[in-house]
Amino acid sequence: MKTTHQRTVRIGLLGFGTVGQGVWKHIERNRRALELRLGASLEIVRIAVRDSGRKREVEVPSGIITTDTIAVAEDPSLDIVCELMGGTREALDLTERVLRRGKIVVTANKALICEHGDRLFTLARQAGGHYFYEASVAGGIPVIKTLREALVANRFSRIYGILNGTSNYILTRMEKEGLEFSTTLADARALGYVEADEALDLDGIDAAHKAVILAFLAHGRWVSLDDIIVEGIRDVTAEDILSARNLGYRIKLLAIISRDFQNERLVVRVHPALLPSNGIIAGVDGVYNGVSITGDVVGTTVLIGRGAGQDATSSSVISDIADAVFMLQGAPAPVISEEDDGVYRELAEGLSLGGPEDIKAQYYLRLHVADKPGVLAKVAGVLADFAVSIATVDQRAHLLEGTASLILTTHETDEKAMEQALGSLAAMSDLLQDKPVRFRVFDPGEG
Amino acid sequence: MKTTHQRTVRIGLLGFGTVGQGVWKHIERNRRALELRLGASLEIVRIAVRDSGRKREVEVPSGIITTDTIAVAEDPSLDIVCELMGGTREALDLTERVLRRGKIVVTANKALICEHGDRLFTLARQAGGHYFYEASVAGGIPVIKTLREALVANRFSRIYGILNGTSNYILTRMEKEGLEFSTTLADARALGYVEADEALDLDGIDAAHKAVILAFLAHGRWVSLDDIIVEGIRDVTAEDILSARNLGYRIKLLAIISRDFQNERLVVRVHPALLPSNGIIAGVDGVYNGVSITGDVVGTTVLIGRGAGQDATSSSVISDIADAVFMLQGAPAPVISEEDDGVYRELAEGLSLGGPEDIKAQYYLRLHVADKPGVLAKVAGVLADFAVSIATVDQRAHLLEGTASLILTTHETDEKAMEQALGSLAAMSDLLQDKPVRFRVFDPGEG
Repeated sequence: MKTTHQRTVRIGLLGFGTVGQGVWKHIERNRRALELRLGASLEIVRIAVRDSGRKREVEVPSGIITTDTIAVAEDPSLDIVCELMGGTREALDLTERVLRRGKIVVTANKALICEHGDRLFTLARQAGGHYFYEASVAGGIPVIKTLREALVANRFSRIYGILNGTSNYILTRMEKEGLEFSTTLADARALGYVEADEALDLDGIDAAHKAVILAFLAHGRWVSLDDIIVEGIRDVTAEDILSARNLGYRIKLLAIISRDFQNERLVVRVHPALLPSNGIIAGVDGVYNGVSITGDVVGTTVLIGRGAGQDATSSSVISDIADAVFMLQGAPAPVISEEDDGVYRELAEGLSLGGPEDIKAQYYLRLHVADKPGVLAKVAGVLADFAVSIATVDQRAHLLEGTASLILTTHETDEKAMEQALGSLAAMSDLLQDKPVRFRVFDPGEG
Repeated sequence: MKTTHQRTVRIGLLGFGTVGQGVWKHIERNRRALELRLGASLEIVRIAVRDSGRKREVEVPSGIITTDTIAVAEDPSLDIVCELMGGTREALDLTERVLRRGKIVVTANKALICEHGDRLFTLARQAGGHYFYEASVAGGIPVIKTLREALVANRFSRIYGILNGTSNYILTRMEKEGLEFSTTLADARALGYVEADEALDLDGIDAAHKAVILAFLAHGRWVSLDDIIVEGIRDVTAEDILSARNLGYRIKLLAIISRDFQNERLVVRVHPALLPSNGIIAGVDGVYNGVSITGDVVGTTVLIGRGAGQDATSSSVISDIADAVFMLQGAPAPVISEEDDGVYRELAEGLSLGGPEDIKAQYYLRLHVADKPGVLAKVAGVLADFAVSIATVDQRAHLLEGTASLILTTHETDEKAMEQALGSLAAMSDLLQDKPVRFRVFDPGEG
């Protein structure tokens, strides 16, 4: 039986924007249920903000607000500090200050983990605290806890999915309404869905940050964005989406982490892909995220939910706070990585990072060609030169006088061969009206 | 850093059938990874079986096999006992013996929890052990952990989904191949998909067991199967599936747990339902299970995965073993119920169990009528008498000489009114060729 005399857990917040205010609001909202479940009282006792005069959605006692971030990070009376400010400079310094003292940090800062996770997890481990990060990947979807705990019996041959809600929103609207990229992007901007640094959403970088985190969790290896394929959605047109649909596919921005245990190759990549329309991940629309996890014991499990936003992200931050409370009550620190290179060297040993040479796929090609005799023959000839075998050809309605749209799909091909063929095609400037575009077809198998 | 001198956790198994052997096999398979992740060694030291001479898929040292179940349940050297034998008599006695000694039981036995969970959880709580049950609901899908931990910030207005793989397999094959129920059932039997007690799969009882467990976890209230709607799939015909598809729906056996926090009513029910074809749960096919969880903070999260089978179930059993190991290392016992009626009385107080009077839905009606003038007028008249408003009517090809199939859907209607109308229709024996059949349409909203 719970007693009325339970431990009070003292929490500090670094940053009080959308997520910070959400955490405050939802702890207040379900405080009784939450405290009964945790067997502890939760008290947010200090909040560091940039501008103490700013109007906020929630009311907090003025005494707990400060602009002195370091004072919060260094406050010895705090049990847990939530870093919800974002950025990778001040946040790094403050996170290190907290972790160095053996305390617990809860974060939603994917960029920081991606850049400095190696150092921060090591620091947490050495000092005896912990660095919790459920909210950093896929908003309200408990993908970190699921990989770390629920699927602890498994090793993961493939994890893939939709990890960026903004690009998924854009692709979904383009498809449902037949809109062009630029039109939809303007709407997404107006709705505040696009990050200030638009490359994060549009060039696949945000999804890549999350893929790097999942790759570390599942395989214990830190991967640099510079070493992997990261392609965004800027090249996707309404024509591509329609052509893909006619072929039985939908175009989604996928993050893919695959490990070949036989050859010990780890491939991490982010790019738009054609997914068979009837699959589960292909059906994840709008701002929702979805992750498909294939483990060697459980088979394939799929998690779908809101990928961002105040409420979903708060739910994940609060679940990390709950796990932190259990740690304060005596639970061992959760596993940081399923097979951490640093600690469990034997599991990651021999594992090497794969690249384009590890990828085989079917490809979708869109060429805008001069509408004159012999063009298809030349294109087909180039593909044949690189042993790229054509599966389907669709020459479409003329877009402009003298121009035709040529949509091809290939049989399974080596990525390297495809790149070379694409290079040769691009060089045929007399035939092509613009840059040839290719997307990979992704085979989800059972998952 | 982990040391090489780590605790050895001693595990006993009660039952060594499909799941028991799976647990053995998969602990062996990923032993190194698992032990590194847990910081403990796992040793299965005793296994109680019914027939010690039986051939098995995995080889185990003969010395650890015994037919003396009580000796295993009472073995003081064991840290964790996994009850994987099934049934509700001997399993009850043995589970009580383990829990009474303050030890940890891991179970996959949904029927036992459903019948005696109240007693067993109380016993676990009083004696200081724990009763883990992830594998009892939805096989490899971590729905228990997700509700209990990942979504700890939430209260749950609705949880629904497909929790019985066998009935989903039957409905999926009926749909994809246009087969009748009896044909598909014969195949499912031949594949070993149907439980010995077929009512569990075909009459919705197995799904209801799981719904009861989820209702307890999420709302702290034990619900009896006798007090809730439990309908199976025996009435679903190929004609219904085709008619539903033409209307834009798929028929799935759903378990639904909904709580109206305003009026504090909890409704738990299991029945076939028409789901809009484009939804995520509607797309969960074959032996897969899917659960949609709507929390007041996170919004809607969906989990999909294998609902049964040796491997998926083993994955969940091993994840419970992992949580048990963390308890043995000092973690507090996990929350048993999100708002346990016994312990957290204030959260469940005032909550009452709702029934048909709480249900409003659109309905699908299939009537096989005499093909003569005035029949539709009479049917429509009866529905009008009970204020049931018709949305669509489809009179179909004659099945037999002089017989027509009348498929109706209604606008939103009170369940009570619908039941009364159905009673009146059933009494029109001169017009109806057989029992009228109705299914509810389920509105998934955003989830």
